[in-house]
This record gives sequence, C-alpha cells and structure tokens, in this order.
Amino acid sequence: MKIKGKAYRTIWLAPDGWSVEVIDQTRLPHEFSVIPLKSAEDAARAILSMQVRGAPLIGATAAYGLAMAIRQDASDEAIDKAVEFLAKQRPTAINLRWALEEMRRAVQNLPREERVAAAYKRAADICDEDVETCRLIGVHGKALIDDIARTKGNGEKIEVLTHCNAGWLACVDWGTATSPIYQAHDAGVPLHVWVDETRPRNQGASLTAYELGSHGVPHTIVVDNAGGHLMQHGKVDLVIVGTDRVAANGDVANKIGTYLKALAAKDNNVPFYVALPHSTIDWALQEGLSIPIEERSADEVLKMPGRLADGSVVTVEIAAPGSPAGNPAFDVTPARLVTGFITERGVCPATREGLLSLYPERAGE
Amino acid sequence: MKIKGKAYRTIWLAPDGWSVEVIDQTRLPHEFSVIPLKSAEDAARAILSMQVRGAPLIGATAAYGLAMAIRQDASDEAIDKAVEFLAKQRPTAINLRWALEEMRRAVQNLPREERVAAAYKRAADICDEDVETCRLIGVHGKALIDDIARTKGNGEKIEVLTHCNAGWLACVDWGTATSPIYQAHDAGVPLHVWVDETRPRNQGASLTAYELGSHGVPHTIVVDNAGGHLMQHGKVDLVIVGTDRVAANGDVANKIGTYLKALAAKDNNVPFYVALPHSTIDWALQEGLSIPIEERSADEVLKMPGRLADGSVVTVEIAAPGSPAGNPAFDVTPARLVTGFITERGVCPATREGLLSLYPERAGE
Repeated sequence: MKIKGKAYRTIWLAPDGWSVEVIDQTRLPHEFSVIPLKSAEDAARAILSMQVRGAPLIGATAAYGLAMAIRQDASDEAIDKAVEFLAKQRPTAINLRWALEEMRRAVQNLPREERVAAAYKRAADICDEDVETCRLIGVHGKALIDDIARTKGNGEKIEVLTHCNAGWLACVDWGTATSPIYQAHDAGVPLHVWVDETRPRNQGASLTAYELGSHGVPHTIVVDNAGGHLMQHGKVDLVIVGTDRVAANGDVANKIGTYLKALAAKDNNVPFYVALPHSTIDWALQEGLSIPIEERSADEVLKMPGRLADGSVVTVEIAAPGSPAGNPAFDVTPARLVTGFITERGVCPATREGLLSLYPERAGE
Repeated sequence: MKIKGKAYRTIWLAPDGWSVEVIDQTRLPHEFSVIPLKSAEDAARAILSMQVRGAPLIGATAAYGLAMAIRQDASDEAIDKAVEFLAKQRPTAINLRWALEEMRRAVQNLPREERVAAAYKRAADICDEDVETCRLIGVHGKALIDDIARTKGNGEKIEVLTHCNAGWLACVDWGTATSPIYQAHDAGVPLHVWVDETRPRNQGASLTAYELGSHGVPHTIVVDNAGGHLMQHGKVDLVIVGTDRVAANGDVANKIGTYLKALAAKDNNVPFYVALPHSTIDWALQEGLSIPIEERSADEVLKMPGRLADGSVVTVEIAAPGSPAGNPAFDVTPARLVTGFITERGVCPATREGLLSLYPERAGE
C-alpha cells in the first residue's frame, strides 16, 4: 500500500541483502519511522514490543529473524534454539510457530553451506505468499460486500465495522479484514468503516484509521463500547475482523473485545466474518478456549502515549494512582457466533466441515 | 464517603447559605478540587462539561441550580425558563427532569416571597433523600452478594464487575451500583471488583477506581474489551451497573458499552443487576430504544487527558490525525438481558410487573 504516494510493504530486505527493515508501528500514527532488524534478537524484540504486530507480519518477521540466526550459525542445534527463542515471544498467534516450522522444513535436510540461501529464499516466499493470500482474501470478501450492496440497492453506503488492525500493517500488504474493504472501495462500491479504537493499544484508532485515511476510505473512529449501540440502530451491515488463531472447530482467538462484538452482531442479525490466511488455522487444536491468552503489562492500560500540541510524543498516566490493572490481550469468540470465514480459497462456515471444504487435504488431522 | 479521612458529599451548600460547592470530577483522579456554583448558569455548565455527572448527582445539581435561579427571579415565567434551560443540558438521564419537576412542584403554588426558602428546602431534601435511597440500595444489593458468598462458600472472594461510575461520585453519597459493594466490604465479605475503564471518558479508571481505592476495596482496572473474556473464564460472579433511565418495560439506558457487558453476562450465565433509585424510572416511556442518546464531542474520543511524570496534567492526541470520531454516550440494554433491578425498595425482575411490584402506586400510569 502507499504512504504519501510511495508503495510500502511492512517488511523488506535491506540494501545489504541480509538484514531487514520494518515500519515501527509503536510510533504510528504520530511518526512514520523505519527501523533495521539485524539479528534474531532484534526480530524478537520487535515482536515482543509490538513494533511489528499482526499475526501474519509476526510470522514474516520471525521467518527473517530465523534466516539471520542461520546466517550466524547454521547448525541444527542453533536452528532449534533460535526457533524456540523466536516462538516464545508471543504465545497466541499461531502464524509465528507456523512460519518458524516452514523455515525449519526449508533448511533441515540441506547441507549447512546451503542453508542460509534457502532460509532467505523461504522467508522471501513467505512474504510474497502472504501478499497473494491477502489479495485473494480481498477478492472473496469483496464478493460478500457486493452481495450486500445489491441487497441495499440505491447506491447506499455499506457500513462495515472492524476491530483492532487486521490491515496491511498487520500483514505484509493488503491486510486480511481490510483487503475486502480496499478492493470494494477501489472498485467504486460506496462504503464507510466504523473503526473500533481497540484499547488498550489503540490499534484501531492509530493504525486502522491511519491506513484507511491514507487510502482515502471513509471511516469513523468509535470507542470499543459503541459497536453494540451502532448495530442496535441498524448502522452496521457487516463486521469483518482478523484472527490470531482459529481452532479446528472454528473458534476464533482475536484481539480482546472481539467476542463482545460477535455477541452484539448475533443479537442484531449482523453478519460477522473473520478473514484469515490458511496459516492461522491450528488444525491440531480441537476448540478455542484452550488457546493460551497472553497477559501483557498493566502499563498498557494505565498509561497512554499521545501527541502534545507542540508535536512531541509523550506518555501520560490516565488512571487512579495506585490502582492495579489486568491486561489480557486476546479473547476467544465461539464458532457459533461467526457467520463465516473468508480465506484465500473462498468463504466457508465457521465449522470443522466448513474449513475442511476449503482445505480437504487436512482431513486426516 | 471519606477522602483522606474527611467525609464528603459530592454537593453541599456553601457557607454563604445560598451557593453550592461540588467536586470537579473532570480533575479526578489527578487532582481533588472543589469548585463553587453561584448561578443556574454555573450549574448548567458543570452538568454539560461533566464536572458533575452521574444521573442522581445531575438531578441534585440541577435542583440547586434552579434554587439559585429562583433566588434571582421567583416569577413563574423565570422558573419555567430556568427549568427548560437546565433540563436541556443533558438529554439521557431522566433524573435531571425529575429533580426539576420536583422543584417546580415544591414552589408553584406558593407566593413569590416564600419560593426561595421552599426551593432550597426541597433541593436539600432531594440530596438527603438520595443519600438514604442509595444506602437502602446497598442494603438490598448486599443481600444478593451475601447469597453468592454462601453459594461459593469457603470464604472465597466474590468477583463483581462494574461499568462506568455509579459510585458515590455519581450520587450525593454511597453510589447506586457501588453501595452494595461498600456495604458488603464493610461487613467483611471478601470481594474484588473488576473496574471497566469506560472509554471515552474513563469514569471507571479515573473515578470508580479512585473511590474503591480510597475506601480500600480490592479492585483491578480492565479495558472495556476485557469483560467478556473474564466472564468466559468464570472470573465474574455478578455484574452491577447503574443507569440513567429505565423505561417502564425494564429496558435500561446506561453508559455506552453496558449493552455489550449484558450480552456477555447472558452468554455466560452471570447475573446482571442494575441498581437505581425510583427517580430513574421513566414511567411514561414504554420501551428503551426511543430514549434520546446524547452524541458528545469527537474530541473525547480523539484526545485524552493524563498526567506527565512531573505531575502536570496535559491533553494528548491519541488517534490518526484527520480521522473523524463518533461519540454516542449511552446505549440501551434490553430488559431481557437484565437479571434484576436493585432499588431502595428491594430487588425485582426487569419487567413492568417487577417494577410495579415495588411501586404499586404507579400502576395507573
């Protein structure tokens, strides 16, 4: 996607041919800053601190992190250690583990001297595949929006609500939940997006709104509390969100608060779709409530970064001094609340059978 | 309740005998500041800017605002004008209109020279009645908490979740939703409160947490997104919230986001109670979705006040520059999602019949 007219991915190989560069997402929307990652440790730190975030981008960053580790030491032992080190940075998104296993498979039966090139090749392919996957999610998702546009008729605006950022900043390009939005918008379908702020880290207000604004998509930021009210009053035609892990039965782990929006959608007969690449499906997991939910720092709840009138960015305390805070980062939306999945292979019901209809090769698992 | 050992109400007559003083709630939790209100205009400004907020306290402030207006001009015409002026400051809470009509009734058939004294007397009574009403809500609500404590047994902590601030800062003293909590805590029932942050104005993180912390009640601030996750994992025994207006059928208008918590409570079989004084019931309203919902400034969503490390309080921009925001301040929770009402007369189902069982004198309306 373009920022001020220049096309960007969220991660790319640096001119040196071995390190990578990423957009520091903790500085957005106040500052567009590119930072170098020169080691697996750098990649791990960027993932943990959420300089890069979003399930697909975490996977891509971990893949390059492992390639850089292999460049240092291509032994089986070093690779195993780097995989475990990178995998433990964030527990909920399955793409992190998926990307690392893909990388391991790409190098494991090769002689050591061929491993570095193979690792960089696979990391680049993971990025390219993610772009194509997200593009296809957009094609299939746009068809759903077209259907609603036909039903509404009269060139009436389609109202989409989304939570957190499952945009191109969460992926390598396009985004998952936003890809249908961008493609519908680009095709001239009139639409408007309600952007959930997404406390505590405000990925909606700071990243999704930034993306949509940069691309010229009409949107309005609302607090996370507002979505139910909007749906009650007929102001939402569909909800599209991303996900960090989908269990084989269709349960969906995603940013904290997603479950509340799914409940409201169900209560108001609003279609609730989850957009995801195949790498987000955890075929080994029978149901979602056992997905590990990351507990993050209380400071994310008690403090807030923001920009002063003079343009400087500061962090302020926003809660009663001395009060503790809890900060679960994800929740699980039961499959029964999900209208359907939008994947690179098409749209399916949020059930084991639905998923297998698109991925029949996984039937044995 | 006490702040640093000194007993306070939220509004009181100043030493001059005619103006009033209130706690400036927009400065909490960073600063405890008392401000004078010397006219109906001052009272209106305090209500609109949310220096005073919470349905019962809005009513009490408007009552004194009208008393001050009558002190200026006790004519019927002036009183009518002042009532309309004060009533229009905030549209959702019914207590505002209720208190103004109580005041009008107290003076309307009196000769002008008796009206000032009668107005101040009625305003003082409205405050005293609110204190006693909230105390009784606490008595009845505590019985519900005691029941849960007996069921849990073993001296296990009772986990209560609340949204926004329906505490003593929202009333004259005690609070509505918090009164059962304070009374159970004071009686030695072990409990812990999950405090919803309550974006956009953070009344939970800044006011409820401040109150509970001052009183020594164990509590944890969570973002508004977290409540569903907590309930899914058995970490909430009951929800108690306040309300700005209850329709005759039991539908509940309250701070934006209440509806989402009610949906989650229903989905997880968690009891969801609404605490209210009789003055919050709008007997003339047949259902809740027609309650006017105040749309407030986008700045409340896009900017955030907070404290810098040096102790100074500043306002920072927190969203993508140029993105618009919507800010509906309340939503309506359908009666079907409410386990019961806790009023000064006892606990009843959230139905017309339930309400009439406690207020049989309203049966004709």
